[in-house]
Amino acid sequence: MRMYDIIKNKRDGIELSTKEINFFIENYTSGNIPDYQAAALLMAIYCNKMNKRETLDLTKAMINSGDTVDLSHIKGIKVDKHSTGGVGDKTTIALGPMVASCGIPFVKMSGRGLGHTGGTLDKLESIKDFKVELSSKDFFEAANNINIAICSQTANITPADKKLYSLRDVTATVENISLIAGSIMSKKLAIGSDAIVLDVKVGSGAFMKDLDSALTLAKEMVDLGTGFGRETVAIVTNMDEPLGYAVGNALEVKEAIETLKGNGPKDFYELCLSLGTKLLLLAKRCENESEARELLIDTVDSGRAYKKLLEFVENQGGDISYIENTKLLPKANYIVEVKSDTDGFIKSMNAEKVGECSLILGAGRETKESKIDLSSGIVLNVKVDDEVKKGDVLAYVHGNNIEKVNEVKDYLKDIIFIGEKNSKEKKLIYAEVTKNGTRLF
Amino acid sequence: MRMYDIIKNKRDGIELSTKEINFFIENYTSGNIPDYQAAALLMAIYCNKMNKRETLDLTKAMINSGDTVDLSHIKGIKVDKHSTGGVGDKTTIALGPMVASCGIPFVKMSGRGLGHTGGTLDKLESIKDFKVELSSKDFFEAANNINIAICSQTANITPADKKLYSLRDVTATVENISLIAGSIMSKKLAIGSDAIVLDVKVGSGAFMKDLDSALTLAKEMVDLGTGFGRETVAIVTNMDEPLGYAVGNALEVKEAIETLKGNGPKDFYELCLSLGTKLLLLAKRCENESEARELLIDTVDSGRAYKKLLEFVENQGGDISYIENTKLLPKANYIVEVKSDTDGFIKSMNAEKVGECSLILGAGRETKESKIDLSSGIVLNVKVDDEVKKGDVLAYVHGNNIEKVNEVKDYLKDIIFIGEKNSKEKKLIYAEVTKNGTRLF
Repeated sequence: MRMYDIIKNKRDGIELSTKEINFFIENYTSGNIPDYQAAALLMAIYCNKMNKRETLDLTKAMINSGDTVDLSHIKGIKVDKHSTGGVGDKTTIALGPMVASCGIPFVKMSGRGLGHTGGTLDKLESIKDFKVELSSKDFFEAANNINIAICSQTANITPADKKLYSLRDVTATVENISLIAGSIMSKKLAIGSDAIVLDVKVGSGAFMKDLDSALTLAKEMVDLGTGFGRETVAIVTNMDEPLGYAVGNALEVKEAIETLKGNGPKDFYELCLSLGTKLLLLAKRCENESEARELLIDTVDSGRAYKKLLEFVENQGGDISYIENTKLLPKANYIVEVKSDTDGFIKSMNAEKVGECSLILGAGRETKESKIDLSSGIVLNVKVDDEVKKGDVLAYVHGNNIEKVNEVKDYLKDIIFIGEKNSKEKKLIYAEVTKNGTRLF
Repeated sequence: MRMYDIIKNKRDGIELSTKEINFFIENYTSGNIPDYQAAALLMAIYCNKMNKRETLDLTKAMINSGDTVDLSHIKGIKVDKHSTGGVGDKTTIALGPMVASCGIPFVKMSGRGLGHTGGTLDKLESIKDFKVELSSKDFFEAANNINIAICSQTANITPADKKLYSLRDVTATVENISLIAGSIMSKKLAIGSDAIVLDVKVGSGAFMKDLDSALTLAKEMVDLGTGFGRETVAIVTNMDEPLGYAVGNALEVKEAIETLKGNGPKDFYELCLSLGTKLLLLAKRCENESEARELLIDTVDSGRAYKKLLEFVENQGGDISYIENTKLLPKANYIVEVKSDTDGFIKSMNAEKVGECSLILGAGRETKESKIDLSSGIVLNVKVDDEVKKGDVLAYVHGNNIEKVNEVKDYLKDIIFIGEKNSKEKKLIYAEVTKNGTRLF
C-alpha cells in the first residue's frame, strides 16, 4: 500500500477502504508519512468529503492510535457532556455540580483553551490551589465518593488527532464535517463513558456559523457515537452572543457560582437545565423531561448543587473561601465601562470578536505556550434584544494593561450593534438531534 | 498576506489574485512556505482548478523565480520546439538539422530523460565525444554560424517549477492542466525564443491518455504562449505506439541518422515534416504549408540536412565517423528476437510499457542518479495495423544483461496485441491548435 495511491483515490472521489484509512493513520502517527502527503490527503478529503463509513473508520483509527480510558471502576451510568466551543461557555462548572448532586457521576477529562474559546481547566484554576491534575486513583475515588471529578487529560489519548489537528490548522482543512466530527468524537469515545450529550454551538462565536452546518455536524457526531454503541444526543444552541454575561476565567467562575446560588443569567441557566435534562434522562435518573427539569431546578433552589460545588472544589484541593466569597477571586487592576453612544436595541454582537477581545486582554491562549491572565476579560451589561439609552453601560472591560483595556473598549463598541428592535425573538436552543432524527424548535 | 488565506481561498473556489500567486511562488521557492502548505494548495488547485488568468500569473511567477536566457544575440527568428514526451521520440535529432539547413536558427536547451520517456541529451551522448555542455559564447556562436546548437540547461531556470514538480510527484497533484501547462511553458518562456511549436502527445505512451485532455492541454499552452506575446502553435500527435521503430539511446540516434539519409520510418519522417512545416512558417521562411513541406523534403533528398547533422555533431566535439558509420555506435551484447505466436494484425501496443521495457534494460533513468546504458533498447519490427504471421519477428531486444533481455522479451509479447484488422486506420496527427482555434484532422 502506498500513501500516493490513497491520496490519488480520494482526489478522484473514490471511497477509501478501512485498510487505507488505517494505513494512513498508523503511518502518519508513527512519522512514516510526511506532513506534505497528509496535507494533500486532508485537502482531497475537504474537497471530496468522506462518507459515514469512512468517517467511522477514521474515528476508530484515531482512537486506536493511542490509549483509551476505562471508566468501569466508576459505579452507575457515566454520561459525558461536550461543547463544540463557544465564548463565555462556563457550563461544565455549573452543570457538573447540578448533575452530580442528583447522584449521577459527572466525570470529565478536559482540555485547555486555545484561540477565542476558553478552557474549563483554565477557568477552574482561578480558584486558589485547585488541582487539575489527578491520579487515576484520586479520579476514580472522587467519582465514586462525591460523583464529580474534572481533571486534565494525562493519558496519551488520540495522538493521531493531535498531529492531524495541528496540520489542519495551518492548511485550511479544519472546516470539514467528517474531520471535525472525527476529531471531537475520537477524543470522547476514547474515554469509556456510557452516553454522550453534545452541545453543538452555532453562530458568530462558534465553529459552525450557520444552522445547516451545525445540524450536519450534530447528526454526524450522533451517528458516530451511535456507531460505537454509545447513546448520543446533541442539542444545537445559540452562540451568536456570548453565553451569559461574563467572558474570562475568574469572571466566568464567578458567574457559574452565582448561577448555582440562583442568580445566574437567564440564558446560561436555561442551557444548564436543557443539557442537564438530557444527562439525567440518559443516566436513567428520571422518567421524562419535565421530571428531570424540576429535579435540576430543585438542586439549585435547595442549595444542593452549590454544596456539591464546594465539595468538588475542596476535594480537588481548592480553597472554598474563594467560592463562598467571590471577591477573593483574581481581580483586574482596571475595570473600564463601555457606554452606548445612542438609543436603541441591541441588534446583535459578534461573539467571536468578543472572544478575541478577551484574548487581547490576556484571558486566553494565542499559542499553546501562552500564559493566561486569569483576572481579565469582559462582563457584558446587555444581551441581544435589550433596549439601551445613550450613556448606558454596554460592558465592563477588566484588564491589567491599560492600553489593551482601552483598545478593547473601542473595539467592543464596533462589535455591539445597536439599532431598531429585531423582528424575530432570539432562540437559545435550535434543535435536538438523536439517532431517531432531528427535532427543530 | 498569509499562506493560510491563499489556501483557504483556493479551497473555497475563490480566484487567486496576482499578488497571492506571486507571494506563494516567491516564498515557496525561498523556503519560507513549508511543503505541507504548498501540498494543500496544490490539491486545492487540483480540485477547484485555475482559470486562464491564474495560470498565466503562475507561469509568470515561476519564470521570475529564476534566470531567463536572452537569445537576442542570435540573428533571425528563433523558433523553439517542445514535445510533451513520448516513447521513441528522437525528433529533435532529425528535425534540428532539417530546419537549420533551411537557414533557420534551431537552438535548444534540453533536459535529461526521466521515467519512461528518454531525453535528447542522453541520446546525443551515444556519439563519441559529443559535448552537451556549451558555454554561452559557444552556444551563441554555433547558433549564428551553423544555425544549430543543442545543449544542457546550465542556468537556474524556473527553480520554483523544479521544487513544485517534485512535490506534485509525491502528492498526486501532477495531472492538472494548469499545473502541467504552467510547468512546461514556464521553462520554454524563460528562454527567449520568438515562437514556439508544441508537440502534444496523446495515447498510451503519453502523459495525456485521451484526446480531450490533450486538446485542453494544447489549448492552455497555446494561450499561455500567446499571453506572453510569443506566437505558439501546437499539434496533437499519436503516442499510442512508439514513434518510429527504435526505442533506446544509440538505437534512436541511428534511426534519426537513417531518416536524414532518406530511410526513416514513415511516421517519424512525417512527424518531422509536420513540425518542421510549422517551424518554417513561424520563422517566416516560407509562404505556405506546401512550400515549407517541399523545402523540408528537399533538405533530406538533397543531403543538406544530413550534412548539417555532421556539421552540428562536429561543432559540439562529436566524432562524425559515428554518424557516417552507425555500426560504431554503442552496441549491446545481446540482441534477441521476439516472435509472434499467431497470425493476425497488430491491433495495438502499449507504448508506455514499451518505454518501461527500455527502462528495465537500463536505457533510461529510474531516478535522477541512475546511469544510462546507451546501447540497450528495443527495435520494433512491426507497427500498429501491420499484418503478421506466426513466427514473424515483432521486435528485437538489445541489452547487456541476459536475464533482463529475456524478461523484456516475454513482457513485450504481452503488450503487443495481435488480433483482427482494426476497423479504423490510425492517425499520426489529430489536431492543430493555434490562438485562432483548433483544427481537427
